[in-house]
Amino acid sequence: MPYNKKLTIGLFGFGTVGEGIYKVLQQTPTLQASIKKIAIKHAHKVRQAPAKLFTTNPNDLLNDPDINVIVELIDDADASFAIVSTALKNGKAVVSANKKMIAHHLPTLLELQAQYQVPFLYEAAVCGSIPIIRNLEEYYDNDLLNSVTGIVNGSTNFILTQMIEGGLSYETALLQAQELGFAESNPALDVEGKDAVNKLSIILHHAYGVAVHPDQILHKGITRLHPQDTRYATEKGYQIKLLAKAKRIGEQELKAFVLPSFVDANSQFYNVKNEYNGVLIGSKLADEQFLYGKGAGRYPTSSAVLSDIAALRYDYRYEHKKTYGGTTYALNEHSQVRIYVSYNRNEIVETNDFVAIEETYQSHERSYLVGIIELDKLKNAYWLEQEGVSVVSLDEIKLSQTALSPTLNNTALAPTVLA
Amino acid sequence: MPYNKKLTIGLFGFGTVGEGIYKVLQQTPTLQASIKKIAIKHAHKVRQAPAKLFTTNPNDLLNDPDINVIVELIDDADASFAIVSTALKNGKAVVSANKKMIAHHLPTLLELQAQYQVPFLYEAAVCGSIPIIRNLEEYYDNDLLNSVTGIVNGSTNFILTQMIEGGLSYETALLQAQELGFAESNPALDVEGKDAVNKLSIILHHAYGVAVHPDQILHKGITRLHPQDTRYATEKGYQIKLLAKAKRIGEQELKAFVLPSFVDANSQFYNVKNEYNGVLIGSKLADEQFLYGKGAGRYPTSSAVLSDIAALRYDYRYEHKKTYGGTTYALNEHSQVRIYVSYNRNEIVETNDFVAIEETYQSHERSYLVGIIELDKLKNAYWLEQEGVSVVSLDEIKLSQTALSPTLNNTALAPTVLA
Repeated sequence: MPYNKKLTIGLFGFGTVGEGIYKVLQQTPTLQASIKKIAIKHAHKVRQAPAKLFTTNPNDLLNDPDINVIVELIDDADASFAIVSTALKNGKAVVSANKKMIAHHLPTLLELQAQYQVPFLYEAAVCGSIPIIRNLEEYYDNDLLNSVTGIVNGSTNFILTQMIEGGLSYETALLQAQELGFAESNPALDVEGKDAVNKLSIILHHAYGVAVHPDQILHKGITRLHPQDTRYATEKGYQIKLLAKAKRIGEQELKAFVLPSFVDANSQFYNVKNEYNGVLIGSKLADEQFLYGKGAGRYPTSSAVLSDIAALRYDYRYEHKKTYGGTTYALNEHSQVRIYVSYNRNEIVETNDFVAIEETYQSHERSYLVGIIELDKLKNAYWLEQEGVSVVSLDEIKLSQTALSPTLNNTALAPTVLA
Repeated sequence: MPYNKKLTIGLFGFGTVGEGIYKVLQQTPTLQASIKKIAIKHAHKVRQAPAKLFTTNPNDLLNDPDINVIVELIDDADASFAIVSTALKNGKAVVSANKKMIAHHLPTLLELQAQYQVPFLYEAAVCGSIPIIRNLEEYYDNDLLNSVTGIVNGSTNFILTQMIEGGLSYETALLQAQELGFAESNPALDVEGKDAVNKLSIILHHAYGVAVHPDQILHKGITRLHPQDTRYATEKGYQIKLLAKAKRIGEQELKAFVLPSFVDANSQFYNVKNEYNGVLIGSKLADEQFLYGKGAGRYPTSSAVLSDIAALRYDYRYEHKKTYGGTTYALNEHSQVRIYVSYNRNEIVETNDFVAIEETYQSHERSYLVGIIELDKLKNAYWLEQEGVSVVSLDEIKLSQTALSPTLNNTALAPTVLA
């Protein structure tokens, strides 16, 4: 039978999300959750809450025996890990939204949960308020789950939407996103695909029970996208989306990557625009479900954090079923992906790295090719280091009937091919 | 710690869904679930499974101590109730997809679960594979849940899409849906909103912990929609959707109904077309999530049934938390809804039933009005019995700035107003 545990919360961070949660908890006494203390960095900011709630000493929260829940909403991943691991060791339930921290410390965090038997929830870490972790953990059995693919980063999706629909260059779209508050002043984590791959790492854990460090997963961002790429997309009727993808291949292997990806109008992702996120769940029975919502920002993040807090009243915890039981999966780094690569005339693409080249287009201005490549080859490709080379996945596009024969040639496509 | 319970299944029904489940379970030994016996009505049909599996005697399943799971996939709600209640009494876990049976027997089914302490899962009963019940039960705390609104019936959505986009009359669109297999030969349950209100009743239970018999909830179907209504929609840029809606008003009251509803292009429902379903979750923090997928048919239903079966390996059960704890909600039948009513010149609309009339339009061909009415007044309106009168909710349309003053007049709008 369910029960209503009374929650006494120690909150780390009082930014927009922290403040929103403080207010909702005040307005919703039925949640039986109150904030006893709030740890902040800078003591002297003006804040919309009684001064006696605040402290700059983390131990005032971590060592308070009254506090049974730590809600951690700070940016710094290292500080976050220190707080969360101490809280778990001290027997306190933890709610966090720090995807980088979680993705980088999954095995340790699992051990801590197993050892200290306290709940550690983090729905807000992946796709904000879309309850993807809870559904992967509870509803989608890994043996029935064919794939999980998502637009998991709102900033890059905003930029990509402006590039395709507004015809903006990457640089201009980024500036606009920053001015409108949809991208950080230091956007590196987002635009280089680091944020997306952190989330993919967490998805892989809850979808298939694997713990893969984000650095091990192929991930490319959107910084290299060239106006030719958006023109190509527009001509073909595609959008470009930064997709994080996990797909079962065979019985025990997974293909996983984060890549800018062409999607056509048949794709659920086609209409996921601006700051929105979307996750497509493919099941063994070929039916697909799509979950859509805002992935970041004050309300979506607060909403997910509050759902986690509410669940703690019933002592809900992730059981990590797929880690501790059932089929064992591993990444297959030799799995293949169809990609489009565009490059300038002074740059080369090592076609020997490809399993097959399906199309080549060369011009003085900008050339491209379409081919199939293994993920590890793409991950380690030296030629991707050249400044002008961009790569976009065609994995979501159904192969056209007019595709060329498997291999056109097998040598580096050098600029000298053109006069 | 999770464990993998071995499931021995007794299956009732071997239509397309039952057959699909049989096949997937055979192909997925990791699920540790096998079908021991299948109860069918007609012994002599040719079936794609060994003959020894089949029986026409329900007791061969219900009384077999080896069988620990009953999967019930038959149409007949009365037979379904008999099977499910016997199975629960015999200590067997049950998976069902029969929304009518569940909605009509909720209190009894709750008692049986409490008494015999066995899981009874029915994700497939609402929106096919969209995991709405699981999410309402586990993720969305009722005190944070402002509303749950859904297109929950694929047949009517297919018909409505054809009416608006193809300009078909209701009758033609229905025929087409039947020919394409998107509507039953006897479509009454669907088109009269009975199926949708059954699902709304189940949603209300898992969202807010109330058990309301479907007959108590205002529900109108799509059979009365007139070409004038679809013209009106087209002129305004609306779609018409049969929406099932549950909305919190105040702290402990709910507004709930099933009505054909205008939705504009800002609505998530606008692009839910043909046989698709979609559910919009509104949370206290004003963030919205949208879940989208196919609501019925072989694969979506099978997919949901399989997820329930998989969950039984971990002995998952609905805890009905919102019924047994937290805030108590009740339907408020005096809550108001803005509606559009269209009618022929020989018919009257009792405007005294309305709180306010906001617009009236009269012509020889077809007249309409827009007004605000209490749900119970609408439920009991005698004038809605006239054959030509149709009603469409405007609850999803944001009030325009040019709306007329609250009340135009307060007398029955009789055809005599026109010369």
